[in-house]
Amino acid sequence: MPSLGYVTPQTMHFAQPLPLQSGASLRDYMLMYETYGTLNADKSNAVLVCHALNASHHVAGEYEGQPKSQGWWDNMVGPGKSLDTDKFFVIGINNLGSCFGSTGPMHVNPASGKPYGAAFPVVTVEDWVNAQARLADELGITQFAAVMGGSLGGMQALAWSIMYPDRLRHCVVIASTAKLSAQNIAFNDVARQAILSDPDYHGGDFYEHGVVPKNGLRVARMVGHITYLSDDDMAEKFGRKLRDSAEAGDYKFGFGVDFEIESYLRYQGDKFSEYFDANTYLLITKALDYFDPARAHGGDLAKTLSHTKAKFFLASFTTDWRFSPERSQEIVQALICNRRQVTYAEIDAPHGHDAFLLEDARYMKLVRAYYEQVWNDINKEAAA
Amino acid sequence: MPSLGYVTPQTMHFAQPLPLQSGASLRDYMLMYETYGTLNADKSNAVLVCHALNASHHVAGEYEGQPKSQGWWDNMVGPGKSLDTDKFFVIGINNLGSCFGSTGPMHVNPASGKPYGAAFPVVTVEDWVNAQARLADELGITQFAAVMGGSLGGMQALAWSIMYPDRLRHCVVIASTAKLSAQNIAFNDVARQAILSDPDYHGGDFYEHGVVPKNGLRVARMVGHITYLSDDDMAEKFGRKLRDSAEAGDYKFGFGVDFEIESYLRYQGDKFSEYFDANTYLLITKALDYFDPARAHGGDLAKTLSHTKAKFFLASFTTDWRFSPERSQEIVQALICNRRQVTYAEIDAPHGHDAFLLEDARYMKLVRAYYEQVWNDINKEAAA
Repeated sequence: MPSLGYVTPQTMHFAQPLPLQSGASLRDYMLMYETYGTLNADKSNAVLVCHALNASHHVAGEYEGQPKSQGWWDNMVGPGKSLDTDKFFVIGINNLGSCFGSTGPMHVNPASGKPYGAAFPVVTVEDWVNAQARLADELGITQFAAVMGGSLGGMQALAWSIMYPDRLRHCVVIASTAKLSAQNIAFNDVARQAILSDPDYHGGDFYEHGVVPKNGLRVARMVGHITYLSDDDMAEKFGRKLRDSAEAGDYKFGFGVDFEIESYLRYQGDKFSEYFDANTYLLITKALDYFDPARAHGGDLAKTLSHTKAKFFLASFTTDWRFSPERSQEIVQALICNRRQVTYAEIDAPHGHDAFLLEDARYMKLVRAYYEQVWNDINKEAAA
Repeated sequence: MPSLGYVTPQTMHFAQPLPLQSGASLRDYMLMYETYGTLNADKSNAVLVCHALNASHHVAGEYEGQPKSQGWWDNMVGPGKSLDTDKFFVIGINNLGSCFGSTGPMHVNPASGKPYGAAFPVVTVEDWVNAQARLADELGITQFAAVMGGSLGGMQALAWSIMYPDRLRHCVVIASTAKLSAQNIAFNDVARQAILSDPDYHGGDFYEHGVVPKNGLRVARMVGHITYLSDDDMAEKFGRKLRDSAEAGDYKFGFGVDFEIESYLRYQGDKFSEYFDANTYLLITKALDYFDPARAHGGDLAKTLSHTKAKFFLASFTTDWRFSPERSQEIVQALICNRRQVTYAEIDAPHGHDAFLLEDARYMKLVRAYYEQVWNDINKEAAA
């Protein structure tokens, strides 16, 4: 399969303040984004791909001179792939508050002349959607062929369908939910407490201290990572295998690494703590916790979705215990109540929540089939 | 129901070194224990109740002048209760390495003259069982009517049946497992990393520094606590309820407490960090991780249990995702392979792993019925 080849991120500066859900506003900000494929003449083939917690605008392709820099959804997006960049013009945008180029807590706060740190305003899924809409405005895209995302990205797609019903024809929501459960929030709060209580966090102003709250970030990532994997998959991959079984074959009777799973998780935690921003982690987990569009409608999701106009594709994965199939089913039910056109797939996959990012022939085929419909949809209208 | 009344802990000193599974030994140690009821003349009515992670020898009754000091299984153990102290002589023993009176990391290491700290040897379930057996020797109990425990306590009961097949007539294993899964180990390691990376841990020697790694313990307890509750129960009890909804009714857009579940978990974490010892937490999670009696038999649990002589009672709880019913079923299957007499109950309870500690009429009735059998068993033999 031909690769998308080298890609280049772009930036767009916004001088007009962005009012936020909290009541605060960002008076000046920048968004980092990438595009793949070609926008057609009537600008009807644009697809916005929204990212989840630790991903970015770099959805697909690779950077020149960086052979291992494939985008986070490179298996999904590219020429001839499920979301085919030979047909669609795909946009990835780094969300505000993230740490991959768009304005975030590590950037200078114009009000203080110092990095925002913990003073960066708490942003919500809806705020991100508003920021994405402005970028679409600048590109002259009045209506997306589709807005798509997995997990937190799926929440953004769902929010688009509610906030800007006329600006997307299709809404693709994968491994997501209309709101976090108490257990989801609990895990997020454990992660936040690990970061906030790390002395190197310095109340969010660690940039000035020349340190990073690595221990807190590491624990936060470890606990998060457990929730991304299924119990079965962990059992299959790691089970009770010892790390140095070939060498010693016995327990070490200390607090170092005994089991492979410990080694794996600590490695994941270490790696993450080296590139991810602690304030961003706090912000993004809060955006997850706060997402609850039905809240404004007394918890009635059907009512919340009653003004949507898009057609929907939802997919969930059987072993995902973070956002289980039941969560997707709730959205499907609420859409059916509103007689929306919905395609729903529950995919039997062993990889837990992470499945939405992984190669799975049935999953990729389903998404491909759906985008063929999206393509026909656009061209039918163009022909009419 | 009449209460057990005031109880008094006792201590027993052991001058003979205890060889440990690690190869190390404890050269001098003390066990804190409590007893309830009266040991009969032929010493056949003794029941050992083993404790789990954060519990102790204080199984039932209360301490004089401390009205809220009920033991951790006071709903289960007492006069007329499921484990009836009018019939049975019940013993609770604080395990070595714990922080409720038995020799542990906060006590003076005779080798150094300083508190053990991280130098306290890593102890295993099997080490605890050996220590408990010595205490039973001192009390002249050659055979327990039953050894009983929930969770980690159930592991000790199971280990008794394997290590001392002639010393227990019944083995009562509740909400337990024959070994931890990769996911269980992963959660334990997150907790350990939170403690180990807290600067106030000081490599385990925080006693000398006059500090306690409270932040690490707090995060450890928070993550542990999530795994004790069921997703459904959390949803029912907390859902997405806001902490100060009466007052503001809206999100706070900061990193403080928004949701009830955050407030609850942080409170649990804070409380725990005030009384529990950080080194004990490390030790006990390692004992959990290491427990795997089938390991010495190539993973064959049936073979491992082939020399047991006890009759077994096992119970699990439907919503327990820490040690799910499948884990108990594995033990039941392995016992059936060996034609052991097994009673197994899978109790439909909403409270997750914590259910084993909670009042539940069906559960209490089942255990009561089983102990009536144990009682008949003892008296049949006495009559014969």
